[in-house]
Amino acid sequence: MLSPSPTLADSVRITEDGVHILDRRVFPLERRWVRCRDVEDVARAIEQMVTQSSGPLFAATAGLVLAARSPATTAAALRRAGARLIATRPTNNAIRDAVTAILEVVTDDDSPAELAEAVAAKAAAVDQEYRERSTALGERAAALLPDGARVLTHCWADYYLMATVAAAQRAGKTLEFVCTETRPYLQGARLTAATLVECGYTPTVITDGMVPAALQAGLADVALTAADRVTMDGHVINKVGTLAVALAAREFGVPFYALVHAPDPQAPAASDVVMEQRDGDDVLHVLGIRSAAQGARGFYPAFDVTPPRLVTRIVTERGSYEPTSVSDHYREVLWPA
Amino acid sequence: MLSPSPTLADSVRITEDGVHILDRRVFPLERRWVRCRDVEDVARAIEQMVTQSSGPLFAATAGLVLAARSPATTAAALRRAGARLIATRPTNNAIRDAVTAILEVVTDDDSPAELAEAVAAKAAAVDQEYRERSTALGERAAALLPDGARVLTHCWADYYLMATVAAAQRAGKTLEFVCTETRPYLQGARLTAATLVECGYTPTVITDGMVPAALQAGLADVALTAADRVTMDGHVINKVGTLAVALAAREFGVPFYALVHAPDPQAPAASDVVMEQRDGDDVLHVLGIRSAAQGARGFYPAFDVTPPRLVTRIVTERGSYEPTSVSDHYREVLWPA
Repeated sequence: MLSPSPTLADSVRITEDGVHILDRRVFPLERRWVRCRDVEDVARAIEQMVTQSSGPLFAATAGLVLAARSPATTAAALRRAGARLIATRPTNNAIRDAVTAILEVVTDDDSPAELAEAVAAKAAAVDQEYRERSTALGERAAALLPDGARVLTHCWADYYLMATVAAAQRAGKTLEFVCTETRPYLQGARLTAATLVECGYTPTVITDGMVPAALQAGLADVALTAADRVTMDGHVINKVGTLAVALAAREFGVPFYALVHAPDPQAPAASDVVMEQRDGDDVLHVLGIRSAAQGARGFYPAFDVTPPRLVTRIVTERGSYEPTSVSDHYREVLWPA
Repeated sequence: MLSPSPTLADSVRITEDGVHILDRRVFPLERRWVRCRDVEDVARAIEQMVTQSSGPLFAATAGLVLAARSPATTAAALRRAGARLIATRPTNNAIRDAVTAILEVVTDDDSPAELAEAVAAKAAAVDQEYRERSTALGERAAALLPDGARVLTHCWADYYLMATVAAAQRAGKTLEFVCTETRPYLQGARLTAATLVECGYTPTVITDGMVPAALQAGLADVALTAADRVTMDGHVINKVGTLAVALAAREFGVPFYALVHAPDPQAPAASDVVMEQRDGDDVLHVLGIRSAAQGARGFYPAFDVTPPRLVTRIVTERGSYEPTSVSDHYREVLWPA
């Protein structure tokens, strides 16, 4: 990882008095932590976007640790806690997979002390595995970037981006960044830009509507985003606006790469993914301040679907694939070369 | 025009003590007027975006009236004032054409009183002609909209939009609107949405990155924007983000119409148009509040260029044209059918 490590690489912490989550709704304009005293607090923090991108994965594993160390904990209670956490945000599959992995070590015969120990150990292992898979993904992604590449980002790719930057730096590659601000929560202007500044870059921030203009002006050679979910048939589901990036990239002949640990075997097609619709009121505000005329309503689809024909490569922890061949990610494990 | 007339239809006023311009940087969140005591104040107000879209046309004609009523006015001074106004914003040709028309009535032999009278009369005529041409344009645009059309807008099309709505209402057509918020100044969320509310609609506001998602969700049947300039070969130069709208419209098979009084005979091609680059710092702020991480820089091309192949029709005061035939706008006058 990078040295010094970016602030957002360590933004969920477990202490004696609960789970503390760095509030990404305001970082880096303000630095405040939200304290969650129980798993319900953690679930609400995820729903309210205190943390997002990779953050909910770490928040969810921490939430289960918190639930497991309650003196009266039971396997059934932990399963309910897991279901609550999975229900927070349906589109990204990271919470689901992490909770499922942790609950596999939970049995009805365990004592509370055994549950606490088993969940804490497994949660740490899941967190560590997430970081390691991201590191592998970052190596694959950095390998696609030529030295001197000017990279257009959208939203905040979190560990995927931090790992890509770290791998590029290890390889001695110079990079430049153009970041969409990513309304309504401004993750690009705040989280991505702040982290890139911490990593030694001077990112250029543009508004979400300027992507084609930036490519028209020749500001970027490659577009790179995370994917909240990749279906087995190569659809990229990611923060709303990703499709706009992909359309502009096609128009201007710029490759568009989407990053994800792995495609989701439980999602053969885009229709298998629950698309989260968030409160339209968020679109009518910026940083809590009213920005739209009274009498208007907002519409806030949290994600959009980019079809395979608009994606150049999908980069996973195991390699980079033509979108329609992304299921080969699993084939290579079964029949290694 | 609509009854009651929208607030923004009367947003530049001349009084005894100067030119008063409704501050579109904050309307309708705040209603304040900027008082301009001389033509330099007017020029700075235009540069600082106190008014935009059709606003600078009315501000510029008012600025010349102000300059002409100075007791020491001369034709040379008025020509300097005109040059100053034209230099404020180079991409839209409305100021240039209005100033040129007014200065045609100015001669070196005129007394100050004659100059004041001639300029006031001509400025009023230019304003009136602008409104009448917009009314004709609105009729043409409304004719393209089927009853029940759901219209996606970008930025603030000002008189073009107000006239289109008025014509559609006269024709008894029901319309719905989806408006991009249009960062960094939020003209869509504020000016377009507020005016549509005044006209009796409940517009849906989306962020600029949501255009493809909104069309993916089937929210709009047609995309409609103004054009700050249309070249004789059919390029549409308009508020940055218009190209993103056009790309999304093509992807989802939605017609994209651009509105302009007329193509510019002084701009045979896009390379003939000066593209305004504004202060990147504006992208790092929202309504005056810092919205981006420290250490990032902003990039703010005020306009982008949409090529003719992405435009369905260009609507002028005389008709609607295939983009590559938009110069026929002038042909029809020379050889009427």
